[in-house]
Amino acid sequence: MKIYLGGPDVFVPNAREVGQRKKEMCRAFGFEGLFPLDSEPEIAGDAIGIFRENCGLMRQADIGVFNLTPFRGPSADVGTVFELGFMFSSDKLIYGYSSDSRDYRERVTATFGVTEAGERPRDPDTYAVENFGWADNLMIVAAIREAGGVVTVATEPREELVAPTLAAFAAFEACLEIIKERVGRVGGEIRRSSRGR
Amino acid sequence: MKIYLGGPDVFVPNAREVGQRKKEMCRAFGFEGLFPLDSEPEIAGDAIGIFRENCGLMRQADIGVFNLTPFRGPSADVGTVFELGFMFSSDKLIYGYSSDSRDYRERVTATFGVTEAGERPRDPDTYAVENFGWADNLMIVAAIREAGGVVTVATEPREELVAPTLAAFAAFEACLEIIKERVGRVGGEIRRSSRGR
Repeated sequence: MKIYLGGPDVFVPNAREVGQRKKEMCRAFGFEGLFPLDSEPEIAGDAIGIFRENCGLMRQADIGVFNLTPFRGPSADVGTVFELGFMFSSDKLIYGYSSDSRDYRERVTATFGVTEAGERPRDPDTYAVENFGWADNLMIVAAIREAGGVVTVATEPREELVAPTLAAFAAFEACLEIIKERVGRVGGEIRRSSRGR
Repeated sequence: MKIYLGGPDVFVPNAREVGQRKKEMCRAFGFEGLFPLDSEPEIAGDAIGIFRENCGLMRQADIGVFNLTPFRGPSADVGTVFELGFMFSSDKLIYGYSSDSRDYRERVTATFGVTEAGERPRDPDTYAVENFGWADNLMIVAAIREAGGVVTVATEPREELVAPTLAAFAAFEACLEIIKERVGRVGGEIRRSSRGR
């Protein structure tokens, strides 16, 4: 069973090492991990080529497991979220994980501040702040729930690799454990239910 | 022909007014605009209900026109980007627009600073910064290009509504003009080509 490894991991200085490690973790759980940089040597600098390669990997994959750890702001990396929408719409199983245990509203509060005037919390630009107690924007978390997945959260312990907090290995492992348990329980049936479609 | 109006417009204080205006603009070009808040009165506060409604509107739509004006950081709103991935994967036509004329790297530089050490620009966390001269993350812009769409950019003039810069009416109008011209040229044929799929 193939897992597409979406996430901002591709931007860390030791991205290949991070990808290699996540692929090894997949293997330990009986899955094959597909990492976006697997084919990049031939297409580095060619944005359309990278896009097509990533779409090809997502089409091959049975499951999308997305690193939703916040990237350059209070939300997940937008490239990752594009892929999550792509795989949701393709009726694939989707899961998320993050090393940040705060909910979306707490992160917006920490980054920009939030006021309570009126019926909804608002940021300093007066834009409403979602307040569902969820890990990120409702479209992301609701999609994962509707597809039968979960978002795992685990604080990342200090370790040797660069950028372990962004890579979120502990939360990733927790996610793989849940997927493994579910796939075993349903006897290898990995099609998504049509609930909510 | 129906256009799904994706964007962070739903978060501004006068969101319904913004949506109404964009729907009127659609009408002036011969399109029907579908705005996410159209049905929200019955489902306010129900995140899964909002998600399902938005997915239903996207499935009804022939074209997705997404407001990519940066939201709470250097990138587009993640909920909007989820929807863009959803509609791309559903083989719909997709377009983008923004009131911010800077490219992604310029915005990251303005927000966080960027260093040039090594072969790629990096932010202060040492994460690589995409440098394709594009409006946002490559997955967003490449998807629009692959689907035959464009991203229009126009500075927003001062006007009476709240949050006009985020709403990006001028860039939205420029986008509608292009869509109208193209739809007219191909005699109403609105299916996406299979290029790059």
